[in-house]
Amino acid sequence: VANRLRKSPFPMISVAAAVDIVLKEADMLNTHVISYKDALGHVLADDVYAKDALPPFPASVKDGYAVVAADGAGNRKVLGHSTAGSKPDFGEVIPGHCIRISTGAPVPKGADAVIEVEQTELVKSADEGRTELEVKILHPPTIGQDIRPVGCDIKANNKVLSAQSWIGPSEVGLLATIGVTKVKVYKKPVVAIVSTGNELVDPGVQLKRGQIRDSNRCMIESLLEQGNFEVIDMGIIKDTPGSILEALTNAMEKADVVVTTGGVSMGEKDLLKQVLQIDLRARIHFGRVFMKPGKPTTFATVNTEIGKKLFFCLPGNPVSAMVTCNLYVVPALRKLSSRLRARNTIIKAKLGFTIDLDPRPEYHRAIVSWVEGDDLPVGETTGVQDSSRLLSTRSANGLLLLPAKTDEQASLPAGHVVDCMIIGRM
Amino acid sequence: VANRLRKSPFPMISVAAAVDIVLKEADMLNTHVISYKDALGHVLADDVYAKDALPPFPASVKDGYAVVAADGAGNRKVLGHSTAGSKPDFGEVIPGHCIRISTGAPVPKGADAVIEVEQTELVKSADEGRTELEVKILHPPTIGQDIRPVGCDIKANNKVLSAQSWIGPSEVGLLATIGVTKVKVYKKPVVAIVSTGNELVDPGVQLKRGQIRDSNRCMIESLLEQGNFEVIDMGIIKDTPGSILEALTNAMEKADVVVTTGGVSMGEKDLLKQVLQIDLRARIHFGRVFMKPGKPTTFATVNTEIGKKLFFCLPGNPVSAMVTCNLYVVPALRKLSSRLRARNTIIKAKLGFTIDLDPRPEYHRAIVSWVEGDDLPVGETTGVQDSSRLLSTRSANGLLLLPAKTDEQASLPAGHVVDCMIIGRM
Ligand SMILES: [Mg+2]
Ligand SMILES: [Mg+2]
Repeated sequence: VANRLRKSPFPMISVAAAVDIVLKEADMLNTHVISYKDALGHVLADDVYAKDALPPFPASVKDGYAVVAADGAGNRKVLGHSTAGSKPDFGEVIPGHCIRISTGAPVPKGADAVIEVEQTELVKSADEGRTELEVKILHPPTIGQDIRPVGCDIKANNKVLSAQSWIGPSEVGLLATIGVTKVKVYKKPVVAIVSTGNELVDPGVQLKRGQIRDSNRCMIESLLEQGNFEVIDMGIIKDTPGSILEALTNAMEKADVVVTTGGVSMGEKDLLKQVLQIDLRARIHFGRVFMKPGKPTTFATVNTEIGKKLFFCLPGNPVSAMVTCNLYVVPALRKLSSRLRARNTIIKAKLGFTIDLDPRPEYHRAIVSWVEGDDLPVGETTGVQDSSRLLSTRSANGLLLLPAKTDEQASLPAGHVVDCMIIGRM
Repeated sequence: VANRLRKSPFPMISVAAAVDIVLKEADMLNTHVISYKDALGHVLADDVYAKDALPPFPASVKDGYAVVAADGAGNRKVLGHSTAGSKPDFGEVIPGHCIRISTGAPVPKGADAVIEVEQTELVKSADEGRTELEVKILHPPTIGQDIRPVGCDIKANNKVLSAQSWIGPSEVGLLATIGVTKVKVYKKPVVAIVSTGNELVDPGVQLKRGQIRDSNRCMIESLLEQGNFEVIDMGIIKDTPGSILEALTNAMEKADVVVTTGGVSMGEKDLLKQVLQIDLRARIHFGRVFMKPGKPTTFATVNTEIGKKLFFCLPGNPVSAMVTCNLYVVPALRKLSSRLRARNTIIKAKLGFTIDLDPRPEYHRAIVSWVEGDDLPVGETTGVQDSSRLLSTRSANGLLLLPAKTDEQASLPAGHVVDCMIIGRM
């Protein structure tokens, strides 16, 4: 203990450099074929083509009458009707005649325009109004009016979705539209979550002296589940090299990514880096980042027979864990899932308060909202920003990126425009 | 057929009025008690209080030494150590002495400051470096330095979360921190989804003449699942009053909200409004909205013995269904879940293109992103905006709210700032 290092041997790197390293190390995973119904949130591995045209037949855009445009305005004899999905009860539309047609129904042979029902009047009927015999077209039609020609939405053999596209609700709908019920997508990473610390107990357990409840696992689990990633809860691990090694080895077998909290500072029970380096022969890419909160954030990789495993060893302080999980883990999981837009989105926001800057760049938890009459959103502070104070993350949907204090700039005034990272519903 | 109405009997109302009606009719559902682990995405029905203080003991903020501040800088004899979660191996810190302490560990009696290890030097050790005997404190400490007093993060009996709060990842963590493992939350609505149309078949089925594949159900299902709502797929229903009535009755029994697509225009097979009004004695709150796309959107409620049921009868065109689902259904589901912020978020964006305005207010699908050097995001069009063209929803994360054309304003230039509704990841 006495001869331990009194300064961290890990160089302090910038957040930007740390994010670059993480994204460089997060390689896309393998692909698999799944049903279009399960594809939401995945990334396509192949281009997707339409086999046939949409619409597959000339289709009416309106409820009305299919006519011969050259007839102009005036009266038409009603031959029958075409409704969507039904067998038509007529042959061909001939001059002076029309057929009643509904939205999406096939436009019959001979007809080259559709007139919406609002632009027509009934002239003659039979069977006490059950049968239309003749209607009046109020305005002269133009050729092609309110008809969707074959393939006007999607041409046959056209590329509909490109490899690397993210599959959202609309893309699921597109797959259904073109009848592609199986798609090749990239696998999504599985994440194992470990809390470390002799002082930690599960939230349901009665506290003894010196103990606190573990909030990091369920918070990180919720954060990642919100992003639709699969999470394995590995529980709480004691501060001994043996139990840490066992937990990490176990986690590596089950998951692509291991997220731990605690055990990365300079205390005598901070054993994570030692176990990673000595026992797991991990490559530690960084062990300190110039940021507040989150300075001791550690990122390592281990090459195994079943692939490269990523280790995010986050600080144990709950706020640091929350901020660094958003900053490093979430983008890495997007990259592993092959999402093109892996990085967090940065927008511009006005400070809703005056703030004294910290010597380190600060990730200030904020509630960001758009107010009437202002083009830019305003970020309001969530209060005292101690890294142990989880209350400061309450309702936060953004992190305000405050620059480090300099001789020229010691504080920022309310109204100042800063970068803001989106971390929740805007 | 001949004597049917040739104009819709439903007054055309504005989108703003329609949204107001929907939110007014969407009442909060009952409450139930669930585990904090399942609480993500729910809304709290009760205030939540901390039973005990956090930290429950004075805790060290740093890895270092607990000292008597009045001793100033200089040498201290090391009495023992305090690590987080372990029984301390010493009594009380007395002047001239210190104990080694790690982050989060209890600060022992007598000590009133913590010095981080980086600000110390080893003076004397024993047992070949295994035991620290004396260290030097480089700078004079101040009283309370790097100690979190009892309750500094959360005071005992303080309100930690308020009723009506939305439970995100941080809130789950907060519940864990204070040991509240059961919470009373509002129930979330269950949504039944029905597609109507004789022309529709499931995506895996071979198309016959006049048929198209149903994309609306899976698209809406994905959209609502993305919002973490529970969805029941009720399949495709034929255009007959009997099958529609049977499906809606069935859906009403299983769900709080029924979302249908198709069957709401002026065609002879558009039977939804008729079944709602005549058979279900529904109150139709609106049947036409002044918007593009989505004009025939219909909203109705039915009071049943098991509560009020909401019916959103969306147009069958896939783009109309997608836009109106975002516009009306999603905010209603948030309101039913008791979310305070039920309405969609509107931000400001610059048009990335020049656009001719439509006689109706248009909800233009766009890809919105922030570019370097500009405070406001830019909205790029997704291309031809036909309401049948689902391709125009591909990758869209925003709807640009374009005003209706007027005599004074027939088009908007690129760079013009417009309102933009968030509908996907920004
Ligand atoms: Mg620890
Ligand atoms: Mg229909």
